This record gives sequence, C-alpha cells and structure tokens, in this order.
Amino acid sequence: MKTTPPNIICTVDVVLLTLQDGVLKVALLKRDREPFAGVLSLPGGYIHAEQDADTQDAAMRMLRDKTGIASPYLEQLATFSGRGRDPRGWSISVVYYALVPAAVIEQAGHAEIVMSPVERIKGLPFDHQQIIEAAVQRVRNKSSYSSLPAYLCGETFTLPQLQGVYEALLGEPINKVSFRRKMEEFDVLEPVEGAMETGKANRPAQLYRLRKRLQSKLSLTDRALNTG
Amino acid sequence: MKTTPPNIICTVDVVLLTLQDGVLKVALLKRDREPFAGVLSLPGGYIHAEQDADTQDAAMRMLRDKTGIASPYLEQLATFSGRGRDPRGWSISVVYYALVPAAVIEQAGHAEIVMSPVERIKGLPFDHQQIIEAAVQRVRNKSSYSSLPAYLCGETFTLPQLQGVYEALLGEPINKVSFRRKMEEFDVLEPVEGAMETGKANRPAQLYRLRKRLQSKLSLTDRALNTG
Repeated sequence: MKTTPPNIICTVDVVLLTLQDGVLKVALLKRDREPFAGVLSLPGGYIHAEQDADTQDAAMRMLRDKTGIASPYLEQLATFSGRGRDPRGWSISVVYYALVPAAVIEQAGHAEIVMSPVERIKGLPFDHQQIIEAAVQRVRNKSSYSSLPAYLCGETFTLPQLQGVYEALLGEPINKVSFRRKMEEFDVLEPVEGAMETGKANRPAQLYRLRKRLQSKLSLTDRALNTG
Repeated sequence: MKTTPPNIICTVDVVLLTLQDGVLKVALLKRDREPFAGVLSLPGGYIHAEQDADTQDAAMRMLRDKTGIASPYLEQLATFSGRGRDPRGWSISVVYYALVPAAVIEQAGHAEIVMSPVERIKGLPFDHQQIIEAAVQRVRNKSSYSSLPAYLCGETFTLPQLQGVYEALLGEPINKVSFRRKMEEFDVLEPVEGAMETGKANRPAQLYRLRKRLQSKLSLTDRALNTG
C-alpha cells in the first residue's frame, strides 16, 4: 500500500537590508500567526502557486505586502531546507535579499517594521539568524568587487558618501584613488548635471546617481577593492 | 469556499561537471519516465521528505543512485522555479553542482551516463539548458578566485597539470608565476612525498594532492588570477 508522501512546506523569505548611520540593519516583523506568533522574524510566507509566477515574484509580493516596498534590488541568496527548521514539517525557504536606502523604508511608512543592527540579532525563530548571517556575508563579499553598495545610497550621492557606504560594509578604510578608479571601471554612475552638494564645511562635491538601466543590475569587477 | 492550494512540485537537480581532454562536460541521463521519457536531462528527482534530511542530502542521494558517485565537492547553485518550467505544474528545483575528476565517473561505471561538452548541448527538457549555463558561469567565475578547479584533478597532479585545468576553465592562458603564487596563497595543496611524475620528455615534476581537510571545502582569494 502506497501512502501519500508528506507535503513539503514551500516558503519565501526576504532579507531586507539598509544602512542607517553607518550601521547595517535588517528589517524584522512580528509574526502574525503560529508558530512563533508575536516573535520578530524575516518578512516571508507561503508561495502562492495561483498568483506567483516564480519564487522571485513571490518575494516581490512579500516585500510589497509586508513592507510597502515596490521594486528594490532583489537577488536570490540561497535555499534553506530540511526536516528540522520549521515545527510544521519538512520545509523549503527560497531566500532573497534586497538592498534599499534607509529613506525608502521610512517613506514606505510601515510602522511595524523593526530595523535591527545585523550584529545584534538574537532569538529569531526558524533558521532566520543563520539566513541573515549568510545574507550579510554575501553582501560584504560582493561589495568588494561590485557596485552593489550603491543600492544602499539615496537617489543622489557624492563619491565620498558612496565611499563611506563601501567602508561601512567592508568594515575598513578604502584607498580613495583606487576607489574612484573602480567606480569609473564599473561605469554605473552618472553625474547629476549642475547638481553639487553644498552647505557643508568642505568645498561643494558633485552629486551622482545610478544609471537608469542599472537600477536593478549589478556591475562586477574581477579584482577586489584595495582596502587597508 | 476555500479550495486546497495546488501542490508545488519539489525537486532537486544536479549538474555534475568534469574535464575530459581539456573539455568541460556535464553528465546527462535518459529520463526513465514521463514527462520527456527517453530524453537526456540532468540527474534529478523528487525530494523524499521521509529520507532526505535537507536538499543537499537529496542531491547526494540523487548522485549516488543515478551516477554511483559518493562524496564529491557539491555546492548549491540556485533554485529554479515557476509555473512554466515543468508541464506537471508549479515546480521548484533546488540545483546543486558537483565537480569530479573524469576518472571518478569512469570508475563509477554507470554506462548510461552521457558526458556532453557544455558548449554543445541542446534539446534539453525543462529549463535544464539554462541551469547548465548558470552552473558553467558560476564555475568559471569562481575558478578565477578560488581553488575550485582542483576538484577536477585526479588524486595527484603536477602544478602544470593543475594550471592546465584552470586555463581550460578560464579559456585563456595564465601567468605561471602568478599562478604558483596564488596556489601558495590558497594553501590547499601538499606535495606527495617522494612522488614525481616521470615518463614524459620534460624533467620530472613534483606531484601534489589536495589537503585532506579541504577535500570538500573551498579556498578563496580576494584577487582574481592574472590571465592573458
């Protein structure tokens, strides 16, 4: 007699990262149902086969519904799976990570989002701690050879501001000349014509923005940035 | 009235790669059931929640059962998903890739395995073509800054042989001095004491092997190899 194989729980979780005052933070939400009702966790939920075209689409829906954020830079991190990670049974979570400027989260105005410094997270349900660690690791690795950190900047920014974002992610100072050469090599920035940042003690600095075509694409280099 | 949500098909596929005569090849097998019965495709199948601890475990089982290969270097590539990729319905495939020396496949002796050059593959079912392209891309990217290609070598090899493997993967010549410096930096090789490769026209070369503890781990560098 053949028994029906147990269903596998198929979910998507999103690690939404931002930089606030030089600190990398992740968006957490209180779970509204069991298991772990009321506990802070990553935004996520079941895949809806009727409405989601694929898991990326499901992750977009999750972000939109739970954080009010519409079209960030979103990339698949990895899939976490197994018998033990969810008390309901054997489960798969396809995990995505998104990078947005802090202002985007504030403007979305979902008051229930808790932005938590990634270094100080504990007590998360499931394997969400491990998922966040993997996402932070990926973002840090990728930052050393790509334009990824630019997605954490506001719409316009100066080169010193962008360098500050890289340094916050990499956790160490970057050589300024090598940084500027790398940004030219990436070819992802364009100057905002006639726009300078003023009002600071320093001399005014040119404002830049991400090229339109690159707002959801990444530019890579085969050589890491010179730090230290 | 609430209808039961349609089940999601949960599978695992494995991209098993090897290098034969300097050509990167992928293992394909004829499917033994519908859909696409008799058509060459990646080794894969349903996750068995009763016996697989997680998807990595399922991938290991798939490899063992379908190719006879026991414990290769295996890494998660990505998850492919959606409504359209499988005629049976909304599906998820968690994809792993494995790198093994050609001799391991020959010794496993599964005669039905077809080793196909990755550049000449067509007519695969599902999105297997796209999956193989993603795996090859990942292996090539990762080869430029890691010890990954060593998993394609036999148990022992000379440095010129290993350099040849890197060059075959990267598709271009590598500077010999920079290559040897990088291998020292990786610190993944150990000389096989007293063992030299002989019987060639050249002078005998020292034989090396992967350090035991690294046989399923990867060593990374933050700077790509100098090619060209």
